Amino acid sequence: MYMYIGGAEMSLCGDDHAKLIARINRIHGQVAGLKKMVEEDRDCMEVLKQIAAASGALRSLGAVLLEEHLKGCVTQAIREQDHESEVIEQVMDIFNKFIR
Amino acid sequence: MYMYIGGAEMSLCGDDHAKLIARINRIHGQVAGLKKMVEEDRDCMEVLKQIAAASGALRSLGAVLLEEHLKGCVTQAIREQDHESEVIEQVMDIFNKFIR
Amino acid sequence: MYMYIGGAEMSLCGDDHAKLIARINRIHGQVAGLKKMVEEDRDCMEVLKQIAAASGALRSLGAVLLEEHLKGCVTQAIREQDHESEVIEQVMDIFNKFIR
Amino acid sequence: MYMYIGGAEMSLCGDDHAKLIARINRIHGQVAGLKKMVEEDRDCMEVLKQIAAASGALRSLGAVLLEEHLKGCVTQAIREQDHESEVIEQVMDIFNKFIR
Repeated sequence: MYMYIGGAEMSLCGDDHAKLIARINRIHGQVAGLKKMVEEDRDCMEVLKQIAAASGALRSLGAVLLEEHLKGCVTQAIREQDHESEVIEQVMDIFNKFIR
Repeated sequence: MYMYIGGAEMSLCGDDHAKLIARINRIHGQVAGLKKMVEEDRDCMEVLKQIAAASGALRSLGAVLLEEHLKGCVTQAIREQDHESEVIEQVMDIFNKFIR
Repeated sequence: MYMYIGGAEMSLCGDDHAKLIARINRIHGQVAGLKKMVEEDRDCMEVLKQIAAASGALRSLGAVLLEEHLKGCVTQAIREQDHESEVIEQVMDIFNKFIR
Repeated sequence: MYMYIGGAEMSLCGDDHAKLIARINRIHGQVAGLKKMVEEDRDCMEVLKQIAAASGALRSLGAVLLEEHLKGCVTQAIREQDHESEVIEQVMDIFNKFIR
């Protein structure tokens, strides 16, 4: 994934990108499974467990990407004093979305 | 969706089931969009926002289903004194999965 | 703790009440410690850890009380068909406050 | 509040510190109220609402302090390349504690 800050680009290394895609594929599969469960009128407790699992997997993925973002874009923005307040505000915006 | 409790079955009325499927389809689309964003190396802040949006949508869906579950299966289990402790423990298990 | 539903009262047994008070005393102590840490200008990472710990302790306490509430008031309201919709809506209201 | 990074110190300005103490005092009062409610055997739904309110207030305070931390310690650590990986890991540790 490229991270654009003030025109600069940083790519996650190939390995991490492949792992990230594999991780999203798993979540995509969980949500596809969820859809099938609802279409098939499955027991609602099973559906709720699957929802909690998919939501948890998304949040863990969010934590991984946020760490990459802090180490990548945020670090670069601060070092180059390039839109650093804006970048920190965006991080807080995401943090607030996740804790709710 | 059927909810099985001790052999009994309750179906969400057709309308609700259609709305539920429409809602899951939207979430499925959000996660498919997320996958495409990562494959296309999109800006990580955009990816994080999409993750927060999809996770929030899943949690709201979970809240809707939990309410249906309380009004349906849980109410029936308590009224018929049929595995009610087990049913309440399952609700708490889901609650604990969601608040984490 | 008494739980009033349509005039009925149920008291948590003495032991549970004592445990509950001990638990709240610990949380009260955590928040008092937090106040002292801020007054003494302590390192903000330490303050953040204490905030996360106190918030986690409150949420766990909430889960314990919610379980008691489901087993007590909610079960009674459903059995006696006494304001059961209202009682379930209140549970959902609390659930929604906690998942945010 | 002082934030120590590699020996450096930054104090929140007096105003912010006073506001922070006022905010913690309010939370301390909420938890004291909670304790009283439990001791007086108050209705458990009221207790649950107070728990949700106090937990929400703590989490909002956590968000405020985290923003200060990012703008203060984290920014300084990155600029001076002083334990920046460690500082970012601590932020993620807090983030993970809060999203759970």
